[in-house]
Amino acid sequence: MTNTTDAFSELNTRLRRAQLLDSIGQLLGWDEQVNLPADSVAHRAAQHAALAETAHAALSDPKIGELLAVLEAQVKTLTSDQQIVVRWARRDYDRATKLPAEFVREKAEQGSRGYHAWAEAKKNADFASYAPVLEKNLELAKREAGYLGQAAAPYDYMIDKHDPGMSAAVIEKLFDELKAGLVPFVREVTASKTKARADLMRGFPVEQQRAFLREVTQKIGFNYERGRIDVSLHPFCSGTGADIRMTTRFDADNPLDSLFSSIHETGHGLYEQGLASDQHHTALGQAAGMGVHESQSRLWENQVARSRGFWKFFEPKFRTAFSEQLKDVSSDEFYLAINAVEPTLIRVDADEVTYNLHVVLRFELEKKLFAGTLAVRDLPKAWNESAQALLGLTPANDREGVLQDVHWSDGAFGYFPSYCIGNMMAAQLWYHALSLRPQLEEEFARGDFTWLLGWLREMIHAQGKRLDTLGLVRHATGEELSPKWLLRYLRERYGALYLK
Amino acid sequence: MTNTTDAFSELNTRLRRAQLLDSIGQLLGWDEQVNLPADSVAHRAAQHAALAETAHAALSDPKIGELLAVLEAQVKTLTSDQQIVVRWARRDYDRATKLPAEFVREKAEQGSRGYHAWAEAKKNADFASYAPVLEKNLELAKREAGYLGQAAAPYDYMIDKHDPGMSAAVIEKLFDELKAGLVPFVREVTASKTKARADLMRGFPVEQQRAFLREVTQKIGFNYERGRIDVSLHPFCSGTGADIRMTTRFDADNPLDSLFSSIHETGHGLYEQGLASDQHHTALGQAAGMGVHESQSRLWENQVARSRGFWKFFEPKFRTAFSEQLKDVSSDEFYLAINAVEPTLIRVDADEVTYNLHVVLRFELEKKLFAGTLAVRDLPKAWNESAQALLGLTPANDREGVLQDVHWSDGAFGYFPSYCIGNMMAAQLWYHALSLRPQLEEEFARGDFTWLLGWLREMIHAQGKRLDTLGLVRHATGEELSPKWLLRYLRERYGALYLK
Repeated sequence: MTNTTDAFSELNTRLRRAQLLDSIGQLLGWDEQVNLPADSVAHRAAQHAALAETAHAALSDPKIGELLAVLEAQVKTLTSDQQIVVRWARRDYDRATKLPAEFVREKAEQGSRGYHAWAEAKKNADFASYAPVLEKNLELAKREAGYLGQAAAPYDYMIDKHDPGMSAAVIEKLFDELKAGLVPFVREVTASKTKARADLMRGFPVEQQRAFLREVTQKIGFNYERGRIDVSLHPFCSGTGADIRMTTRFDADNPLDSLFSSIHETGHGLYEQGLASDQHHTALGQAAGMGVHESQSRLWENQVARSRGFWKFFEPKFRTAFSEQLKDVSSDEFYLAINAVEPTLIRVDADEVTYNLHVVLRFELEKKLFAGTLAVRDLPKAWNESAQALLGLTPANDREGVLQDVHWSDGAFGYFPSYCIGNMMAAQLWYHALSLRPQLEEEFARGDFTWLLGWLREMIHAQGKRLDTLGLVRHATGEELSPKWLLRYLRERYGALYLK
Repeated sequence: MTNTTDAFSELNTRLRRAQLLDSIGQLLGWDEQVNLPADSVAHRAAQHAALAETAHAALSDPKIGELLAVLEAQVKTLTSDQQIVVRWARRDYDRATKLPAEFVREKAEQGSRGYHAWAEAKKNADFASYAPVLEKNLELAKREAGYLGQAAAPYDYMIDKHDPGMSAAVIEKLFDELKAGLVPFVREVTASKTKARADLMRGFPVEQQRAFLREVTQKIGFNYERGRIDVSLHPFCSGTGADIRMTTRFDADNPLDSLFSSIHETGHGLYEQGLASDQHHTALGQAAGMGVHESQSRLWENQVARSRGFWKFFEPKFRTAFSEQLKDVSSDEFYLAINAVEPTLIRVDADEVTYNLHVVLRFELEKKLFAGTLAVRDLPKAWNESAQALLGLTPANDREGVLQDVHWSDGAFGYFPSYCIGNMMAAQLWYHALSLRPQLEEEFARGDFTWLLGWLREMIHAQGKRLDTLGLVRHATGEELSPKWLLRYLRERYGALYLK
């Protein structure tokens, strides 16, 4: 017993050190996006590499392997939480040690090459020059799955990397049902005569935008004593609950972009701040995965911050801050602008309703690529047909089609589905929260978000990795994950606006 | 030959890694002062500790010892630059490996305890509670010197830690000569009827201050593509030439504090940016020591930025930025405010003329403490007598006397003299530069600082650690370091203003 107690304690010490080094790497990354002088890029890359080497050495220290072997041999003597810690430490240790150094180097080099090849191909709308990169990345992904004993199901391995416990078969079933409901709904909304005005928001001074989004994100619960928000080219959220670094970007003529991306990142930040603060180095205090993370960011961004109740509280404040800019904008026009729908070929420009179809498209193509039923050279054609079928739009060239996203250039397959899983989960959490607390929107209208955050803290955040995505949905809502809630939510919110 | 070539190359690889880890630690420190959320302090301390452990392991890797042994055994086959690299790597390696882990731990703990004891003692002006800390710190310093084979001259060891090559005997001779000239000069200036107006500068908006100091520091040569300036409680400069992070602080009613502290830090930054950019990991691309560093910051802050030529160029710009605030201030009043002299008991508030006496005071007491001719319990009395003799002022209590500085609480003995060595060196460099380039101030008056920076780059910055403080002075000016230039400078600049 002392044996496992000591081993568990020693394992914790080592995991804590590895996590601290990882968190320093995150700070380097944040600083790179927020503060780095233009000519300091090469120096930062060298710092990253030196730290990564150190962090990898900490994670792959054979002593961790020995401690895990001791603990696994006496697993029955461990508490259930200890067993979870050990199980996840094993997974991380295997991923840190089972890939040959030569493979890791090859993959890193290919990632860098791939990025530049993609950027060049996108600029020239030239898929042919990019095809060999994709083929190589697919091959590397399959080899990686093989090293981890997952050669039989490499796409499942890639999905599980981002969203532990998830698989292509589960996603396919969910997405098929979602698609069946969503495609006709998008057709209905697109055909509506009601359109949000595109020219509504002009000349919003950045300083006032900053003050307003700070007020909003603080009000919904972000703890600025343990985090900050700064400016970068693309918004993101990094760090751990002990020190969250979020970013946003400002455009005087598009204040809603800044505001909603800030609320989105705040959703991520609230999740991290809600994880057990003394367990960030173990599975007990770490996020369950990307799907769950996205459910938190999307719930706050969409279900909450696009609701009538939310704006009942914040619209008067927004109008006080921007009285001149909004003097000719009615409340109805304003609310419609917040919930604008307009199909586009570009995923990152997509609205809440059509976004999910962009994800479905990518999932279906990835799945076929891994299954070998679609060749890389046939990707553009398959993409364009799918875009027409799902979105009713056909790319004029591959720049607005298959070449639009950076992800695959770095081998990040299996990443996209998490966005849509997050949306489905967010909607399901939302309706369950409403069933427990029907007055939720009235509370929002009074600027009170505490019940919802408290419930998420208890049901989702405090769980860490004890449950995976599907387990957390079951735990929080008592039902299996289903797209019906997202379909219901979109129909209720957008139907009311566009299908009157 | 291949043997040493390989060993030298391998040594460089390891030094580079250690330097990168150190630079990450500096970034953590910068971020802590500039960005850290209030409740993230403990997390940052843990990050620091994890990184320090890693950096120490990199520095003290036995492989470095083996490589050094190989290179030292064949030192004659090395170029002179390689020999310098090896000599300094040996010094750093010995300092990283010769202190027992137990001692390092004891010292770290004592440093933390010492800081809190000092803060408490200062608050209560209670020296007695602080005396045991000082005694312990003295003992630790002596033990540390012993581990490094310097038991016979522990104060020299402490001085050399901050300013390599310098010793108490050299400093004593310099300071005695300085004191003999400076004490009577301070008396003369203090007795002058001419006084700078203390109420001159009020209501300078921070944003305009920021823009102005940015213009000034860029004009004198700071490369903002490889550095930045931000805000912290106390100004500092950190990082390497690849990415310099400076800070300043703003007070609407004291724009000169912000401006001159920024120029001071810019002097440090220019030195770092002038070091060989591909050799930051070896002695060839590292600063020679604190005294030389301070000579660069002080030269730009004082000799340059308090000169008539400098303000001939910048005063019109300053008046454009702050026309309202300066409308009743004449040019003479403005220039006198820039060169205000007013003896004070507090070192950090001291002007350029009296500052050096604060340093002399501390040096003389440190020297006696280490020699055993002054007991810690007698420090307050000795301090007060010295303050009266040097500054003509006697502290009302120990808060404005022996307890004012933090340095000794952490065992940083031998640190203070560098400030004054830097001032002497700055003045000597200045007059030598003028002898080579008599039109220097006329160039400043046209906003042209390139000759001076170019000369410093060549004579000081590009040398790295090839020469020590005294060697650099000899190299740049052809003479031994002497206080006569500082005395001449102070008399010329301040005599002209106060002793008309």
